[in-house]
Amino acid sequence: MILSLFNFALLQQDTDSEARLGHIYTERGAIDTPTFMPVGTLGTVKGLLPEALKEIGAQIILANTYHLYLRPGHQLVKQMGGLHDFMHWDRPILTDSGGFQVFSLGALRKITEQGASFQSHLDGSKHLLTPELSMEIQLALGSDIVMVFDECIPHPAEPEYIADSTNRSARWAKRCRDVIPAGSKAALFGIVQGGMELDLRKQSAEQLQEIGFEGYALGGLSVGEETSLMYDMMEYGLPLLPRTSPRYVMGVGTPENLVEGVARGCDMFDCVMPTRNARNGMLFTNFGKLNIKQARFRDDQQPLDPDCDCYVCTHYSRAYLRHLYTSKEILASVLNTHHNLYYYQQLMAGIRQSIEQGTFLTFRKEFYKKRESTS
Amino acid sequence: MILSLFNFALLQQDTDSEARLGHIYTERGAIDTPTFMPVGTLGTVKGLLPEALKEIGAQIILANTYHLYLRPGHQLVKQMGGLHDFMHWDRPILTDSGGFQVFSLGALRKITEQGASFQSHLDGSKHLLTPELSMEIQLALGSDIVMVFDECIPHPAEPEYIADSTNRSARWAKRCRDVIPAGSKAALFGIVQGGMELDLRKQSAEQLQEIGFEGYALGGLSVGEETSLMYDMMEYGLPLLPRTSPRYVMGVGTPENLVEGVARGCDMFDCVMPTRNARNGMLFTNFGKLNIKQARFRDDQQPLDPDCDCYVCTHYSRAYLRHLYTSKEILASVLNTHHNLYYYQQLMAGIRQSIEQGTFLTFRKEFYKKRESTS
Repeated sequence: MILSLFNFALLQQDTDSEARLGHIYTERGAIDTPTFMPVGTLGTVKGLLPEALKEIGAQIILANTYHLYLRPGHQLVKQMGGLHDFMHWDRPILTDSGGFQVFSLGALRKITEQGASFQSHLDGSKHLLTPELSMEIQLALGSDIVMVFDECIPHPAEPEYIADSTNRSARWAKRCRDVIPAGSKAALFGIVQGGMELDLRKQSAEQLQEIGFEGYALGGLSVGEETSLMYDMMEYGLPLLPRTSPRYVMGVGTPENLVEGVARGCDMFDCVMPTRNARNGMLFTNFGKLNIKQARFRDDQQPLDPDCDCYVCTHYSRAYLRHLYTSKEILASVLNTHHNLYYYQQLMAGIRQSIEQGTFLTFRKEFYKKRESTS
Repeated sequence: MILSLFNFALLQQDTDSEARLGHIYTERGAIDTPTFMPVGTLGTVKGLLPEALKEIGAQIILANTYHLYLRPGHQLVKQMGGLHDFMHWDRPILTDSGGFQVFSLGALRKITEQGASFQSHLDGSKHLLTPELSMEIQLALGSDIVMVFDECIPHPAEPEYIADSTNRSARWAKRCRDVIPAGSKAALFGIVQGGMELDLRKQSAEQLQEIGFEGYALGGLSVGEETSLMYDMMEYGLPLLPRTSPRYVMGVGTPENLVEGVARGCDMFDCVMPTRNARNGMLFTNFGKLNIKQARFRDDQQPLDPDCDCYVCTHYSRAYLRHLYTSKEILASVLNTHHNLYYYQQLMAGIRQSIEQGTFLTFRKEFYKKRESTS
């Protein structure tokens, strides 16, 4: 039996907030937490070479089980030596369970105790995704951190449905753990559900800890609820999880969300926002968001973000980036994605440094102050 | 007056063919000839960072006057410090004259002695492109090698029209030389026209040499004529040009065309083929062309071209490239373009080496032999 090298060290607990500094050890490299994971849905972080991802400072990326199961298929990826070899990325990969994507299909899926049956968004073919199959797929991909198969409950939802679903997700989580027992090569994270119901969140957190996982996530957030409610759910939910395990809030979020998530004790984040926004010309800067297609940037010789030292900001002007974007050039997506992900990585690096220096609350204050100033 | 540093040294003349080894010196760097110039239409070689272009070995790129005039506009580019600064490329740039694109507009343009009036393909706005304006645009862009404004004659065409057009192009060439006299910072190349009429080609070559240019191009080729006719036109046309100047066949071509062009005495080439084909999944290898979307590559762990040592071939499988292409991922264009341009640059490097070693004809034979073998 191959023993997992997965390990989490809590290096520092902020005294003024719930912020934590940590270190995840995996066979494929270390991850400094709090961390942000760029999303590489189909085995590529859209527009970026793996080398660029490393240059940007990404220590782990996320890949989507649902998408890779449908295309090119997990068996093919396994045959090709696993996702790391396939996509030329040798650092850790976290795979989601496919649950979120399946449940996003709405009318195209149906849930039973066994799992979720759904129709492919690509060709309408019918599939049944079970906890066991989700584990099989993630293991075939060669994931370093596997997520349990769960139901992401829509918001709002009936309390009774939330209770039933949360209990079912707990039973599914147990079935996942049975496939990937503690000490396996891949780490397995449980996902707390419970909708926006505090008692169910508590119950879910307890159910998962009874089973026991290498890490814990809050699921079912960033699903359309008010930001303040999301923060409340983090504030309530994160302390329910073991101090000694990494805590991950799935699918979150904006730079503000990351700062607030860290303040409430979160160690890991992922979101398509920096990459998807980049392709739409929406760029993150230390002074807030900026839409590069605006006419005011037509002859703007300034770098995108004068406070940024990324490859894009040190080599190109806003005028050039606007030209590429309005001309629909491939390089627009490449450069914009590079910058946005760098911004996110730098934000996390700044957060970590401030926790280490005991100045996280000051960092947070400065973060908001800068954004109020004009670009 | 700024004296041009442009200079061409003919280093070696092959004894078995018209192939020549040369060296172009410009203020922005040297170019080993025979050379292939990747096309960066709108101030970007689609999908590639300038750093990648250098890694691939590109010593000069081509940019399109027509496109940059319309978007973002040459005045804006000038205001941004010129095209080199704008796009972060510090090696030489050759700009075409806009003529070819304007004449491609067909019904949307009209030719007079003054120039060519046309409607923008972007917004239908009306413009008059004259030899003087073409020079103004190319100078504003900061071009290192400026091409004279000429008419690219369609094929087939009436002999009378070809004669009139060729004479007009000669008068236009003179007007261009008047704007950019010999010894200017930018080099100016004349373009031989004359359709497929040998006597008019000869006349055009003589008219241009009478004016005198830093280099000479054959225009009006690769416009739909038979390949054998194109080769005949090269064979006839290239020796009409001064031995001591660089000779450029515009818009050519396939790998075979390059080898045959060199054999006939050509020093410079440009073509959208490697970049455009890359985006369509058509890839060049030492064994011939390959369409990456084919099902047979689904689980092919081999590199794209086992004989290639480019970044793509040393890091990715055909299966991964096929997956990216069928998934319409941005990285498909990025990696495919990288490989195709590397293939072209390596081909030219191989050609140059063989000329130097006096083995060009052997190289040419091997080139064809390899392509007859199976991939």
